[in-house]
Amino acid sequence: MMKATVYHGTRDVRLETVPDPSLREATDAIVRVTRAAICGSDLWFYRGVVEREPGERTGHEFVGIVEEIGSAVRTLRPGDAVIAPFAISDGTCAYCRRGLQTSCEHGTFWGDDANGGQAEFVRVPFADGTLAVMHEGMRENDDTLADAATLCDVMATGHHGATTAGAGNGGPVVVIGDGAVGLCAVLSAARVHRAERVIAVGHNAERLKIAAEFGADDCLDSHDPQTLERLLELTGGGAPSIVEAVGNEESFNLAIAAAAPGGTVTYVGVPHNVKTPDLRSIFLKNLNLRGGLAPARAYIETLMAACVAGQIHPGRVFDSRIPLARVAEGYAAMDERRAIKVLLNPGA
Amino acid sequence: MMKATVYHGTRDVRLETVPDPSLREATDAIVRVTRAAICGSDLWFYRGVVEREPGERTGHEFVGIVEEIGSAVRTLRPGDAVIAPFAISDGTCAYCRRGLQTSCEHGTFWGDDANGGQAEFVRVPFADGTLAVMHEGMRENDDTLADAATLCDVMATGHHGATTAGAGNGGPVVVIGDGAVGLCAVLSAARVHRAERVIAVGHNAERLKIAAEFGADDCLDSHDPQTLERLLELTGGGAPSIVEAVGNEESFNLAIAAAAPGGTVTYVGVPHNVKTPDLRSIFLKNLNLRGGLAPARAYIETLMAACVAGQIHPGRVFDSRIPLARVAEGYAAMDERRAIKVLLNPGA
Repeated sequence: MMKATVYHGTRDVRLETVPDPSLREATDAIVRVTRAAICGSDLWFYRGVVEREPGERTGHEFVGIVEEIGSAVRTLRPGDAVIAPFAISDGTCAYCRRGLQTSCEHGTFWGDDANGGQAEFVRVPFADGTLAVMHEGMRENDDTLADAATLCDVMATGHHGATTAGAGNGGPVVVIGDGAVGLCAVLSAARVHRAERVIAVGHNAERLKIAAEFGADDCLDSHDPQTLERLLELTGGGAPSIVEAVGNEESFNLAIAAAAPGGTVTYVGVPHNVKTPDLRSIFLKNLNLRGGLAPARAYIETLMAACVAGQIHPGRVFDSRIPLARVAEGYAAMDERRAIKVLLNPGA
Repeated sequence: MMKATVYHGTRDVRLETVPDPSLREATDAIVRVTRAAICGSDLWFYRGVVEREPGERTGHEFVGIVEEIGSAVRTLRPGDAVIAPFAISDGTCAYCRRGLQTSCEHGTFWGDDANGGQAEFVRVPFADGTLAVMHEGMRENDDTLADAATLCDVMATGHHGATTAGAGNGGPVVVIGDGAVGLCAVLSAARVHRAERVIAVGHNAERLKIAAEFGADDCLDSHDPQTLERLLELTGGGAPSIVEAVGNEESFNLAIAAAAPGGTVTYVGVPHNVKTPDLRSIFLKNLNLRGGLAPARAYIETLMAACVAGQIHPGRVFDSRIPLARVAEGYAAMDERRAIKVLLNPGA
């Protein structure tokens, strides 16, 4: 028997004792979780904004050690440290080969089928395709494991936003939103793509301080009515690359208004309450609006290298590190915005 | 004195006698119009859907002969045959140099300031930047002049849609809409980009016949409830390139639903009544939604070459050719869908 987090209803998740997972398919692996994270998107079901079945396991961000492999698994061995991206993918279909693993023909997501990541053990389908072997340098300590845990989702997602917005093409980059993904988009734009100027827009002074540490040249307050004007001033009339990392209508349309003609606005979270994005301005300015459930698996190796080289330390977004036993407290802290992001340690 | 079309109110445009235009700026030219066209977008004010000031001149698609040039005009001489794109641009600003002339820093549009194209003469601001000299082979006859007149807007706009959708990148192209722009997008995809397969979706059998002539491999009925299923079947699960050339919510979301993961949907008209584009599917499938007021000026030379080479004959979209004197009838015919597109001849 093991411990796993189970959803029971709005603002009710519980760590429960459940049967150990076992290999089901020859392509499965069993992973012992060493760190798991709570995601901003977990708050959608936690708050009852999106529906979820009571009894389902939670958690889609975890790193761990391979305990057992199915007979068809070729690239992993028991004892390997691994990073699990938030999407399961076979690694062999046409979309996986193109680096769009979130559209994998056999892809699924954690949580279904009793395999959530906020647990002691997880059964991993398509283990060869899904899991990335952790670089030696990331196994060292609490901080490097925190860095590793961001590659499951938030750092990969922020990097996807910055990358698809063209942060590497020159010109200033604007990131709207100071949640974990927004902060990671700043980090990607400033330290991975080395954009000439990165402007962070948020409303929380503590978080904007991290944005500055992550390389933002300017931090603007999203509640200030002058923010759009200031953005246009700082960017000489609009930025070619904008990452929208909030997902509501106000921030969506701020992103569109702050984009230069011909520019790209990416959004990397499920949009909520965006009823009328400003399609007319997108048309008049010839903008690209790019959606983007991040194919995290495609970025893990690149981002691991950047971590190990000391170029980025995205683990800084975890401002709370607690034992898995306190997972319910972790959800409450994120729900009440007392924590940006919570890292859970099943071994603590 | 000369004749020009003047807007008076809903479904009321009149050919009136007005003063001849004269040079105002040193960068102006005066053009004698040889062909002008009525645009689908003219119907928006004609029908009262968008507001317009009574007394304003109409028409933004015309070709003609340079009569007179200002002292600063360098690339044109009286007697030159020219094509005027639907947007006025200086040709020298950063956006013009990048081929995004619709975002020209000094750009304006026809119709303001008493210079509509559905007239005998027009004053052309920034003549060097705005006008393209017509290839010798396009001056020949009614048909070549009809081809030329499409380069002002509809053919350039269809080509912009197909080009920015990635019609040249391989894979099938879907064009939704069988108006003049949709038909031109089919022509661009099939004959300029030589896409492996082009699928046209429309609801008018006559127009879809032109789509087939223009190179569509399949023509589907947009009113058929099986259309999406058929599109997915024909494209093996979705097309990488989709041009949305209707601009309402139903066609927008059909375009998004028919796109393959990682694909691009372009829309090249002002969207009307698109309240809730399916941002969630754009997100989940990692689509690009690209707006696009076409920088027609950027495409005129390429498209002229394709016309002269016999590769395309977009003038086929003009199913009505009448004297300028009958402009009011022309509007009525397009409004009542008796004509796809009307070509006006001030000299007839």
